Amino acid sequence: MLIQEDRLFPADLKTRSIAHGLYEQVRNLPIVSPHGHTQAAWFASNDPFPDPAKLFVQPDHYVYRMLYSQGISLEDLEIGQSKIKDPRRVWRIFASHYFLFRGTPTRLWLDYAFHELFGMEDLLSEKSADLYYDTISAKLQTPEFLPRALYERFHLEVLATTDSPLDSLADHKAIRESGWKARIVPNFRPDSVVDPEFPRFAESIVRLGEQTGEATTSWTGYLNALRKSRDRFREFGCTATDHGHPTAQTANLRAAEAAELFSRVFSGNADARQQELFRAQMLTEMARMSLDDGLVMQIHPGAVRNHNRQVYERYGRDTGADIPRPTNYVDALRPLLDRFGNESKLTIILFTLDESAFSRELAPLAGHYPCLRLGPPWWFLDSPEGMMRFRELATETAGFYNTVGFNDDTRAFLSIPARHDVARRVDCAFLARLVAEHRLREDEANELAHDLAYGLVKNAYRL
Amino acid sequence: MLIQEDRLFPADLKTRSIAHGLYEQVRNLPIVSPHGHTQAAWFASNDPFPDPAKLFVQPDHYVYRMLYSQGISLEDLEIGQSKIKDPRRVWRIFASHYFLFRGTPTRLWLDYAFHELFGMEDLLSEKSADLYYDTISAKLQTPEFLPRALYERFHLEVLATTDSPLDSLADHKAIRESGWKARIVPNFRPDSVVDPEFPRFAESIVRLGEQTGEATTSWTGYLNALRKSRDRFREFGCTATDHGHPTAQTANLRAAEAAELFSRVFSGNADARQQELFRAQMLTEMARMSLDDGLVMQIHPGAVRNHNRQVYERYGRDTGADIPRPTNYVDALRPLLDRFGNESKLTIILFTLDESAFSRELAPLAGHYPCLRLGPPWWFLDSPEGMMRFRELATETAGFYNTVGFNDDTRAFLSIPARHDVARRVDCAFLARLVAEHRLREDEANELAHDLAYGLVKNAYRL
Amino acid sequence: MLIQEDRLFPADLKTRSIAHGLYEQVRNLPIVSPHGHTQAAWFASNDPFPDPAKLFVQPDHYVYRMLYSQGISLEDLEIGQSKIKDPRRVWRIFASHYFLFRGTPTRLWLDYAFHELFGMEDLLSEKSADLYYDTISAKLQTPEFLPRALYERFHLEVLATTDSPLDSLADHKAIRESGWKARIVPNFRPDSVVDPEFPRFAESIVRLGEQTGEATTSWTGYLNALRKSRDRFREFGCTATDHGHPTAQTANLRAAEAAELFSRVFSGNADARQQELFRAQMLTEMARMSLDDGLVMQIHPGAVRNHNRQVYERYGRDTGADIPRPTNYVDALRPLLDRFGNESKLTIILFTLDESAFSRELAPLAGHYPCLRLGPPWWFLDSPEGMMRFRELATETAGFYNTVGFNDDTRAFLSIPARHDVARRVDCAFLARLVAEHRLREDEANELAHDLAYGLVKNAYRL
Repeated sequence: MLIQEDRLFPADLKTRSIAHGLYEQVRNLPIVSPHGHTQAAWFASNDPFPDPAKLFVQPDHYVYRMLYSQGISLEDLEIGQSKIKDPRRVWRIFASHYFLFRGTPTRLWLDYAFHELFGMEDLLSEKSADLYYDTISAKLQTPEFLPRALYERFHLEVLATTDSPLDSLADHKAIRESGWKARIVPNFRPDSVVDPEFPRFAESIVRLGEQTGEATTSWTGYLNALRKSRDRFREFGCTATDHGHPTAQTANLRAAEAAELFSRVFSGNADARQQELFRAQMLTEMARMSLDDGLVMQIHPGAVRNHNRQVYERYGRDTGADIPRPTNYVDALRPLLDRFGNESKLTIILFTLDESAFSRELAPLAGHYPCLRLGPPWWFLDSPEGMMRFRELATETAGFYNTVGFNDDTRAFLSIPARHDVARRVDCAFLARLVAEHRLREDEANELAHDLAYGLVKNAYRL
Repeated sequence: MLIQEDRLFPADLKTRSIAHGLYEQVRNLPIVSPHGHTQAAWFASNDPFPDPAKLFVQPDHYVYRMLYSQGISLEDLEIGQSKIKDPRRVWRIFASHYFLFRGTPTRLWLDYAFHELFGMEDLLSEKSADLYYDTISAKLQTPEFLPRALYERFHLEVLATTDSPLDSLADHKAIRESGWKARIVPNFRPDSVVDPEFPRFAESIVRLGEQTGEATTSWTGYLNALRKSRDRFREFGCTATDHGHPTAQTANLRAAEAAELFSRVFSGNADARQQELFRAQMLTEMARMSLDDGLVMQIHPGAVRNHNRQVYERYGRDTGADIPRPTNYVDALRPLLDRFGNESKLTIILFTLDESAFSRELAPLAGHYPCLRLGPPWWFLDSPEGMMRFRELATETAGFYNTVGFNDDTRAFLSIPARHDVARRVDCAFLARLVAEHRLREDEANELAHDLAYGLVKNAYRL
Repeated sequence: MLIQEDRLFPADLKTRSIAHGLYEQVRNLPIVSPHGHTQAAWFASNDPFPDPAKLFVQPDHYVYRMLYSQGISLEDLEIGQSKIKDPRRVWRIFASHYFLFRGTPTRLWLDYAFHELFGMEDLLSEKSADLYYDTISAKLQTPEFLPRALYERFHLEVLATTDSPLDSLADHKAIRESGWKARIVPNFRPDSVVDPEFPRFAESIVRLGEQTGEATTSWTGYLNALRKSRDRFREFGCTATDHGHPTAQTANLRAAEAAELFSRVFSGNADARQQELFRAQMLTEMARMSLDDGLVMQIHPGAVRNHNRQVYERYGRDTGADIPRPTNYVDALRPLLDRFGNESKLTIILFTLDESAFSRELAPLAGHYPCLRLGPPWWFLDSPEGMMRFRELATETAGFYNTVGFNDDTRAFLSIPARHDVARRVDCAFLARLVAEHRLREDEANELAHDLAYGLVKNAYRL
């Protein structure tokens, strides 16, 4: 068997049995996925996924970064190609190095998908590579494996994509107009028009102006354009914005200063410090707009993007070479919190890649400020050990109710059920330990298991 | 049952049984509380505690920060009022949100007090709010619930308060003169006269001069006044000083430089860097005085005080909006250690809110310098998970004997037995794991359980 | 019994049994020790070790730093003396304070050596001090306890020493010429000639020139001399270099700038920033040479050396007063990685004393860059809890195959088997938990146990 019924539950029999009991209450709850990177186009066109390599290897930087770290070239994996020329060859390389993923969450997610969706029984390896390839390829051509069928099979209740303000949202529109009753909504991710270091920043602001009919060459027009853009997203069911800045720095400039800073960054005359200040100011502006229109803010700071210069120059953004750095919240968030921190109608969800901040800064902040909530362990921390440490480090100070359930944050559509299943299991394992150690009653744990899997995310993201 | 006999012990039956055996040796040991924030006035006057809200909600920022974080206003909780107008209403708000504390140490402490002291059987909730309120209110009026009776019931051997050099210690005097045989002693906490950023700093130094008959307008007179003030505290049984600076920075200036810096901060002409330097220098001065008079130093660095500007402006200091920041020890302590680090007659107890320092800096420092000891996990880390991580992170490098037992650091008098009970249980759980894994013999674990609960604290604090 | 068969395995019976099974596969594998600080001279001369104090106390800063931290003077321990005048007295001090080591890895290592090598049955204490002393002294005079006999008894397959480029390697030569078939090889540790803050830096560079026949007063000659020196080490079986800089900073200067910087540091006219920049540049130069000659690079950053000024002035380097500080990798390594990061023929092994970097920076870096691998938990982290945290923090992102097995890094020859045994047990305990939680299959765990104990280290260090 590729996956075991008791996976991820603690070995101690008493605790395992409690965990199992809790999990039975939540395993079949609908999946709410409020933050991720799937493509609305898949569901708009509902075309079959092309082949196993295109589905599992090429889009998933969790997969190919590990292969690359062990000396396999990105050329051999055909990364960065729009079409894979020899998908079976790519698949065989992947299969014969599948042992590299031992002990990683990627292995858990993939085994789950291989077993639950494609009925595989033996471990993926050089030997089983072709059997896997042929089985998966064949199934992908069947109606049950079309994107919309999978959406329903996965029992998704909400699926959020992540989109630029410049995106037409045509695919979201197409989904709506098709009459298909799925709740696929965009997240408003304005990096391209609020981060002066983003490629083609000024050009994007001009396009934003064209799109919204606002004079985005001025600070006021620019802010109006963003407001209109947010409104347009809200019409498509959007309930949240997302901000992936290098740091969590915020600022609270006077309007005149902000306007001058905008002129400077727009004209390309800003230095690195001013670019950072502009991003900082824009977080506060976004909070102000959120107070008006109700969009929930997500702040995902702390990654050094495109750390590998050569890979970036050859393969572009998001090719798996982003590396976290130490991230300060206590000073960085203060300007925004000074202004809006006590607004209980505002919700700001904080993420981190720097675990040392969980008990030191994030739990104390979220355990005090009405507007703050803690997002689930993110990216490299979206893993059994990472999730368990998050609960251990954050719960005692922030409690459970300042957290917001799980989100999968994935480009890999087929991993969504596996990821939520891992989160539900680990949360149940944590709750089970609290029950076994008499720190929580079983009826409370049952309620919490439900909240962590379903209630908190719907509430926090206003879904 | 609100609390279980086996709470906080590991689920594994063998380990649990070892932990239980160790705990039986220490559960009834007297409580030594060398650092906390109870009021000597309670014991001087021995008046009954007024009502449940005044006792459990209003003074405890652990409690109301969580309620505030979930949108309950501080007005509704009557925080900052000297008298609570509608304590039953405050209590009901608290009770109906008691679920927010699931998984937190506050929940453990409160359940313990509710059960052990007030005989409550059902969990606090909206439904049981009034039963709790009426039961607690009635008991608080009985002789067994007067402060002195509780002191004895709690089996306290020493209870330290925390006091400003400007405090007359009249309440401590009254306790002594009453003939009541309790050991309630002050801790010397000179923030108001050594931290230039403290409100009314210069005015306090003038008052210190008046109190001690020293000319505190000069550096020499100021130091003499501090020495006299320490002596006065020692007459009331004080054995320790306490220093709550923003950082752990120390300095070792030449006398002339220090004198000039003093003039500058006293006259209000110092900038932020000079204020920090003055605090730094004062830690070294305090170490010098400790070598003379034998007072143990406690350094509690790393909290950004009054982080929430609006709450601070409206409700003042210590209203739950202090947030930790990354704290350096390795460079910061060096000037002091260069001067006094090798004095084995000096004891400096280090605390942290930044867990990443435990294995990286604090255990290596305490495992080398004769004057250094590690304080127990503090504040947000005073919790089952926090304590366990402390033992796991510090013991292998610093050993057990460079730690100093537990201290409760609390304003919530009724939580003291619960807090010490949690610490004893978690320490026994940690020792039990070492025994179960054959890393420690059971006879050694027994000795250690006693030392961690009682021996080390008496020794380190010279009690 | 001093040591138990099941030590360090988890208490849970099912997991313990899996751990035991895995351990049985690896307990008797040969020891590969690719990085350490034993003396080649011991094996060249094969003289008996003099006495228990000289063997266990004096060379081991893990031992005497703990004694010192508790007020025992270094004079009483005769630290820094070439010959111990009263070794029995030193031993008795040590023995009567052996309880200080409870819960530390030192205790595990020593008990193992006492029991396995010297047949001791009772715990070391004041009472048993003389029995220990006499037993050990007597055995040290027997042929079975000569250095070469112990090397063979320990089942060592490779033992690496750490040596300066200025070292003649005469002892290594003598071992080779003696005909004894042991693989004792040097590591190339160039601190004395690449770190401008090293005592007698310029003088050492001159000596390097004399030794290699290169004009080391110029940048080119200096680099040539280092190349020749590396070649000389390689002739003695050296496969790795080692770099113990204060930080992980690297640089990638143009040749002319580097040459100018060299002139400046060589002439003693460099400030602290330039000294740091020179060390940074030299890491990149070493990487360039490694690409040519195949030596594996080890980077051991992040210790503040000689933190205790008084102890340093009196007893010199390496007397136990090195304290870690926060260590950045993500920015610091970038210049080197920009240049050579994608070279899969280069191997750079990263170590840390700052655990917060494991999940935040080190695992993400090693899980991407082909040239990077993670070294085992080092120094203060070379401990059961430290090792377990390393696996928990690093595996999910870097996998097992970007790690390099264990190295003992010790001056204490007799602790080598104990240290490797601890590592094997902890790794098996970690693997056993993954198996018990169905995150890994048992056949995979068996393969991994073998790789972690033996395969990875041979491969990573090219042995």
